[in-house]
Amino acid sequence: MTVHPAHTRVLRPDEAGDLAVPFTRVALTNGETFDRYCTEGPGSDPEVGLPPLRAAWIEGRGDVTSYDGRETQLLDNGRSAVRRGAAQGEWRGARRAPLRASGTAPVTQMAYARAGIVTEEMRYVAVREGCDVELVRSEVAAGRAIIPVNVNHSESEPMIIGRRFLVKVNANIGNSAVTSSIAEEVDKLTHAITWGADTVMDLSTGEDIHTTREWIIRNSPVPIGTVPIYQALEKVNGEADKLTWEVFRDTVIEQCEQGVDYMTIHAGVLLRYVPLTAGRVTGIVSRGGSIMAGWCLAHHEENFLYTHFDELCEIFARYDVAFSLGDGLRPGATADANDEAQLSELRTLAELTSRAWEHDVQVMVEGPGHVPLNLVEENVRLQQEWCHGAPFYTLGPLATDIAPGYDHITSAIGAATIAMHGTAMLCYVTPKEHLGLPNRDDVKTGVITYKLAAHAADVAKGHPGARDWDDALSKARFEFRWRDQFALSLDPVTAESFHDETLPAENAKTAHFCSMCGPKFCSMRISQDVRERFGSDLSTEDAALGMKEKSAEFLELGASVYVEP
Amino acid sequence: MTVHPAHTRVLRPDEAGDLAVPFTRVALTNGETFDRYCTEGPGSDPEVGLPPLRAAWIEGRGDVTSYDGRETQLLDNGRSAVRRGAAQGEWRGARRAPLRASGTAPVTQMAYARAGIVTEEMRYVAVREGCDVELVRSEVAAGRAIIPVNVNHSESEPMIIGRRFLVKVNANIGNSAVTSSIAEEVDKLTHAITWGADTVMDLSTGEDIHTTREWIIRNSPVPIGTVPIYQALEKVNGEADKLTWEVFRDTVIEQCEQGVDYMTIHAGVLLRYVPLTAGRVTGIVSRGGSIMAGWCLAHHEENFLYTHFDELCEIFARYDVAFSLGDGLRPGATADANDEAQLSELRTLAELTSRAWEHDVQVMVEGPGHVPLNLVEENVRLQQEWCHGAPFYTLGPLATDIAPGYDHITSAIGAATIAMHGTAMLCYVTPKEHLGLPNRDDVKTGVITYKLAAHAADVAKGHPGARDWDDALSKARFEFRWRDQFALSLDPVTAESFHDETLPAENAKTAHFCSMCGPKFCSMRISQDVRERFGSDLSTEDAALGMKEKSAEFLELGASVYVEP
Repeated sequence: MTVHPAHTRVLRPDEAGDLAVPFTRVALTNGETFDRYCTEGPGSDPEVGLPPLRAAWIEGRGDVTSYDGRETQLLDNGRSAVRRGAAQGEWRGARRAPLRASGTAPVTQMAYARAGIVTEEMRYVAVREGCDVELVRSEVAAGRAIIPVNVNHSESEPMIIGRRFLVKVNANIGNSAVTSSIAEEVDKLTHAITWGADTVMDLSTGEDIHTTREWIIRNSPVPIGTVPIYQALEKVNGEADKLTWEVFRDTVIEQCEQGVDYMTIHAGVLLRYVPLTAGRVTGIVSRGGSIMAGWCLAHHEENFLYTHFDELCEIFARYDVAFSLGDGLRPGATADANDEAQLSELRTLAELTSRAWEHDVQVMVEGPGHVPLNLVEENVRLQQEWCHGAPFYTLGPLATDIAPGYDHITSAIGAATIAMHGTAMLCYVTPKEHLGLPNRDDVKTGVITYKLAAHAADVAKGHPGARDWDDALSKARFEFRWRDQFALSLDPVTAESFHDETLPAENAKTAHFCSMCGPKFCSMRISQDVRERFGSDLSTEDAALGMKEKSAEFLELGASVYVEP
Repeated sequence: MTVHPAHTRVLRPDEAGDLAVPFTRVALTNGETFDRYCTEGPGSDPEVGLPPLRAAWIEGRGDVTSYDGRETQLLDNGRSAVRRGAAQGEWRGARRAPLRASGTAPVTQMAYARAGIVTEEMRYVAVREGCDVELVRSEVAAGRAIIPVNVNHSESEPMIIGRRFLVKVNANIGNSAVTSSIAEEVDKLTHAITWGADTVMDLSTGEDIHTTREWIIRNSPVPIGTVPIYQALEKVNGEADKLTWEVFRDTVIEQCEQGVDYMTIHAGVLLRYVPLTAGRVTGIVSRGGSIMAGWCLAHHEENFLYTHFDELCEIFARYDVAFSLGDGLRPGATADANDEAQLSELRTLAELTSRAWEHDVQVMVEGPGHVPLNLVEENVRLQQEWCHGAPFYTLGPLATDIAPGYDHITSAIGAATIAMHGTAMLCYVTPKEHLGLPNRDDVKTGVITYKLAAHAADVAKGHPGARDWDDALSKARFEFRWRDQFALSLDPVTAESFHDETLPAENAKTAHFCSMCGPKFCSMRISQDVRERFGSDLSTEDAALGMKEKSAEFLELGASVYVEP
């Protein structure tokens, strides 16, 4: 907890007393404290990785076996690794043999929940959310929430995604063919969770994909998501038409064994939907969507992810990997929002949701993208209806296309709105969207922007306790507790540095004024005078009564009130 | 037009051919152009000021007379000026004798509109908005729109504020007791209009208020708003209880003569409403509101702005100054949103709106502030109902209080939403809100953020032609016209520099890929393949038909599609 000296990491036990769930505690100058859940994990040495928090829970259920696993191949790390004969920056930390279901029974949180079993993961989540564990179990059983926890990512601190819970934020990281290194990506991961990312997707498409992912998973206390088609494409030299189900399945198993918690699968991009995009302003903008569309066109065959979907479910059920059903045909411009291509795919995603649930596999459904504000609500309404309440996971959406460089903002507008109407997780957008890969600072800006959008939605939804944070900060502001105002801020560092730009002196942090009005006059101070006169606990009636007395007093003094000029 | 080499200022005539309305024309690399209205003005030497564009129009109506005007007093520039015996940085440009109505007949755009007179200002606005001039006249006559144009601000380019027109953005500038100089404020004005501010409010509360305002008005092609109570307070040594109607009236006349186009008047802060704020989390946060509340409490008298409101109307009618009826009791925290204090004041503002209209004085009504997203729509709905459709002018609102340093974003979320539901003008919020005074960069960030929020609302409202801008940019993006994408951006400088961070080479601006996917694979390229195969003008049926043929072809070749594994 290095973001502010007033922050400490505290561990809150569950009722049974055998769990320790981390919270960030903010110590205020008035002696009060404010706790909020924390995604940062216990901190790790990147070379060593995190301790396996969940190992005993997984073992305790007695339904998984370790096995030799797939042998890592040079091509897993791309063509350059093949040329060089080795990956760069090989993982040197502990390697655990992979686990998978011992038999055919699924080892998913959904299967347990449906069987009435309350797992440690569910109890952990209940403490984190401050809710009843039965709410967690029943929502997971119904498919309305997921806890993405691969049995091979024992380092992760369980987290729930569903509309009855706090709105979550995902941060995308990952290299591309033109930029970035493993160390940079691990640093982005750490930066993202420090600022509150609830999950991280590794979208690497460049060098050393396998090894980069190993470093990321071993150091991540939050669920890790991927889009396995990106790596599969690298294995076939970047040529979409060369992809096969076999290459893809092998890549999925590779990633299951590493511990990826959820995977984006573009199984809804059906051959017959592809022509629906021809008249669009921006066609297909999802990388995964266009890979599969390209494959379908090249082969004139149905999307192999769709035709092999049940096999995928069987694999996911053995590791407890959750589907993130990709919206490969999402609109890439507000002009293309809610069109037939998009909605046709959504109907197919609804069908696939039900199929995954037959296998007890957890599912969330991805959504747009670029949507004008008046069409945002319809997106989540249709998704929730058609997909039987499966969690919605949206990218923004951007409410306008005119502001490249500010798309964290154009999309935060759409994101807060769609989350208020029921989206469970928001995929962040950074200022670099459409222009380049995010660097460390962009990751922070993206996370903070999306945390505030998610929180605005929690408040708007009337989520229990959500507004407490706003109230604590507003009270600090009203009482001129500047230090507390900084400490309670989503980004204390920026808040304090902005304040100090105009009033750098130490005593300005305890001053009863700020640079907006200056010391002579302060509206907050006048409000405090009002409160002193009338008391802060006055009901409206009391207040009116108090005023009457004052008026009476005043009239006795011979003055004239309420008289027109 | 220095923001991008592809931008030029073009002048569009009206039908009669006697007006020249400026637009920014973006020249695209494919030979097309894209025009949007421009607030930058013709550019001025700050020491000289702008030419009096409207002088002939005003004179031509034959209903105003120039007169000697009020003598400037040292105290107009504050206590330091009195001490020094002079203001700093006296205005050295031309001084015109002030104008006002020759007789008792109001010289307001509303009076003309109601009399069926179409003014040059209305025609100018119609060209700017690309709408019929009768829409302008009828909306102004009905009070549903205002054109703030003081007869003493002849430098201004007319602009309309109303829900049937494009959503407008105001930028606040102004010094305070602890910071800033005249030159800085003029620079902020220029910066604000360069990036698209539609009006600017000079909220100075520090040194040389009169002179700073003179420099600002003489150099401003956009309407200038003020909160005269700030200056009046300075004249009584910052002691709210020393304020009198006479000091205030004198200050208003001083500002009318300088050419202020609209003034925030906190006439709705009634004595009996003040106690309603005692139980709030953040009491009264409006400076003007707390000054008037402080005065009411000190005197136990009704707000003199309320009791003298008709006199104010008479003054405003002589110069065509518009009311911006201040919401002095707006919430300062989401906890206080839509409470009785706020709504009581709004009812009074509705009453005052009708009273101003009896004098043919133009009115807009100010709104919050801090409002959770689920309560935003109610604010504009009530205001529009109660105030008979008078334009609403809101500050944000912020959708959450937890992110100081990012309040341009927390408020852009509320702003886009409230504007979609009918707010006519948005007052920007900069990243420094709650923490300090905005500097030049903050002004730019605030303006860009609010322009994108306003535009998102225009698109969501289906405003005629609004989405054209989005479509032009999206098309440029889809066709890899990087230079056009930058040129069409709200902030071309930032867009281009972000792109260049990862791909600085000149040829990357014409490359058919970007740093997100790299050169090997590009989703946009695959989409273009789809379009080439199926044509971009295909209707859905045609597309389905095309697909059928392909399928038939394909089946003839003996392949199997749509077959489950």
